[in-house]
Amino acid sequence: MSVVKLEECRERLRTELDNVVDFWLKYSHDNVHGGFFTCIGKDGKVYDELKYVWLQGRQVWMYCRLYRTMDRFHKPEILEAAKAGGAFLRKFARVPGTSSGQWKCAFCLTRDGKAVKIQRTIFSECFYIMAMDELSRVTGDEDMQLEAEEMMKQLIYWVQKDSSGLGRPQLPGDIPINSMAVPMMLLCLVQQLVEGRGQEVVQKYRELGNWCVQQILQHIQRNGTAILENVSPEGSELPGCLGRLQNPGHALEAGWFLLQFSAESGDEELQRTAIDKFVELPYQYGWDKEHGGLFYFLDVDGHCPTQLEWSMKLWWPHCEALIAILMAYSQTKRPELLERFSQVYEYTFSHFPDAKSGEWFGYLTQEGRVALDLKGGPFKGKNIIELDNCQDARAAEKILSPAQGPQMSIFNYQLDN
Amino acid sequence: MSVVKLEECRERLRTELDNVVDFWLKYSHDNVHGGFFTCIGKDGKVYDELKYVWLQGRQVWMYCRLYRTMDRFHKPEILEAAKAGGAFLRKFARVPGTSSGQWKCAFCLTRDGKAVKIQRTIFSECFYIMAMDELSRVTGDEDMQLEAEEMMKQLIYWVQKDSSGLGRPQLPGDIPINSMAVPMMLLCLVQQLVEGRGQEVVQKYRELGNWCVQQILQHIQRNGTAILENVSPEGSELPGCLGRLQNPGHALEAGWFLLQFSAESGDEELQRTAIDKFVELPYQYGWDKEHGGLFYFLDVDGHCPTQLEWSMKLWWPHCEALIAILMAYSQTKRPELLERFSQVYEYTFSHFPDAKSGEWFGYLTQEGRVALDLKGGPFKGKNIIELDNCQDARAAEKILSPAQGPQMSIFNYQLDN
Repeated sequence: MSVVKLEECRERLRTELDNVVDFWLKYSHDNVHGGFFTCIGKDGKVYDELKYVWLQGRQVWMYCRLYRTMDRFHKPEILEAAKAGGAFLRKFARVPGTSSGQWKCAFCLTRDGKAVKIQRTIFSECFYIMAMDELSRVTGDEDMQLEAEEMMKQLIYWVQKDSSGLGRPQLPGDIPINSMAVPMMLLCLVQQLVEGRGQEVVQKYRELGNWCVQQILQHIQRNGTAILENVSPEGSELPGCLGRLQNPGHALEAGWFLLQFSAESGDEELQRTAIDKFVELPYQYGWDKEHGGLFYFLDVDGHCPTQLEWSMKLWWPHCEALIAILMAYSQTKRPELLERFSQVYEYTFSHFPDAKSGEWFGYLTQEGRVALDLKGGPFKGKNIIELDNCQDARAAEKILSPAQGPQMSIFNYQLDN
Repeated sequence: MSVVKLEECRERLRTELDNVVDFWLKYSHDNVHGGFFTCIGKDGKVYDELKYVWLQGRQVWMYCRLYRTMDRFHKPEILEAAKAGGAFLRKFARVPGTSSGQWKCAFCLTRDGKAVKIQRTIFSECFYIMAMDELSRVTGDEDMQLEAEEMMKQLIYWVQKDSSGLGRPQLPGDIPINSMAVPMMLLCLVQQLVEGRGQEVVQKYRELGNWCVQQILQHIQRNGTAILENVSPEGSELPGCLGRLQNPGHALEAGWFLLQFSAESGDEELQRTAIDKFVELPYQYGWDKEHGGLFYFLDVDGHCPTQLEWSMKLWWPHCEALIAILMAYSQTKRPELLERFSQVYEYTFSHFPDAKSGEWFGYLTQEGRVALDLKGGPFKGKNIIELDNCQDARAAEKILSPAQGPQMSIFNYQLDN
């Protein structure tokens, strides 16, 4: 990939970001009840008024991030929309948990804010924290920062001490699991919460950050030849489908969280591990050699996964891959990484964007045909990836992506890192 | 479709049934811990030792049903396998519920019977009841029949009186729903429990049977032009995706439950409604005019469903369609129904059976390519459909199908009706 080509990518990404932000500004705001519509069809029409909390949190976070870090989005209407979304979230998303004195966040709300469903996981809370923390940065509201840190405290308690407050019954056959999503998301939150804060906050989360990294590294299995999605809390392989499951998009996402962490801490060994095991490896096993694109799920022993959607191509793993590979390249300048980037870029930009009505399609068949033509759904929100402000066009160091993954999302790769 | 052709279908179905039963007798029995392996790969290899309770119950039911009603399966090894499976189920599947004094059935067990997961629905319990009742018929064990009736009593309580024992938190936005699966499955259980029993049992469930029929009929919506999967308890349309959801396989399944009910009660108006609204209609809107086969999910207003697998072709809706259409034909002799049967038959038998390794594939892409090559999984077990003993080959009156649907299953279309 040449310098000229990389500059073209940068331009394309900038245009995409503008179009995508326009799409959501235009179609997603609920000016009656507040918050954002998240179920938006091909042409911008709201096809369901339910408000999914992951996506409320992401949209607040994204608007704030754009407003705070990119000049061309530093506009009053973006700030106002973020604040209105944050107010809706704060008013309605937090609901009493099953354990006394604990709070949960709903997974889904009615248009006017009534809780419809609560997941027995930590992810709604994660996106709530992301939103509150980022909002506190643009508004200077310390109470919001406190709200984020309080919820974070509870989340750490669930993950490290006692998960019974999540509401899952304790069953004898339901063994504890180190699921990639959990330490990966916690690491993302740590990076969000400490960014630019004073030493006191940095110190507070230092140990947790290291713990997350160790938990993520436990997913390197089979003598370093595979990343497995679920392992035991001690880091050994689990039996059955659960233990053999691979999610290349998650591995790549963890990869760039680790790269970011290693860059901040100056840990070169971690950097090498991140690139070899969490960027190169999942790209190798996750790429569909026949039709192109990254598989959603795989089984490390080649059995057929039991997830009906295993062979589909989703937008978010491709966003994760672009960021992870480009970040790896920007740190090492290894030319083969730029070749990989080029391949993922070509697939992504020739398949996902909808040139006619804007935004991206999210779900393709294995062969690359659009399988669901919605632009927003229960797990898909604003889809933005941007490669911006490259001072060194060959390195393409600056990239922003809030891509909305169905399990996880990328939030805090900082524009200025 | 000619008499000769229908006779060919009958022969093909008979052969399939023999092969499928052989497959499960050969690969699924766990002779160490009891019960049945349910995760079985393309060539018969067990790829996960977890034991899914729906499928344990179905296999016990099926073995008993075959043993009891078809001479060529009246063999000691089938009876013994059913009894061993029933013992495993009874020992391990029933677990204490969250409400005191109530029992739940686990959704999934470890190989040695430890509960892994409990669903907050009624379906594991339904399949438990099916197994216990049918087993009591071949063994003459009245205690088992009592066990089935006790669980049934609790299930009716959850559905008609108070669902809090299912473990779902009561949330202000989580409105009550009449979901097709519930009255459909209850009607199936009523038919199972009363079959051949004395007047006392028939009387006991008469009112419930009528209630189920009324609940099912509420799903006829849009001035009779659509069957919707979820309606309000009063039978009005619900907002959003949930309210617009269509599941053609479920509608067809409900169709033949209603046909069976109408035949037993001599209700000709119900028969007409069943055929027009639950057989003809879902076939019309559910059939993929471009690639053939029945869609899994649709949206009545033509929006894209949010289920990633909406356009896939699953084995079980096709089995339901074959039974429903043939039953409708056998009751009315309307020739166009035989034409529809022929179309579904051609698609089904040219796509799902695996001529090489036996059994059926369960999951195809929209275009008809095998997407998952497993033979058994969390929701797919023995796949059997048989058209047998036709005294009138043109009518093809006798058909047996235990097809294992991911939501529901067909169990009790009686061989001798």
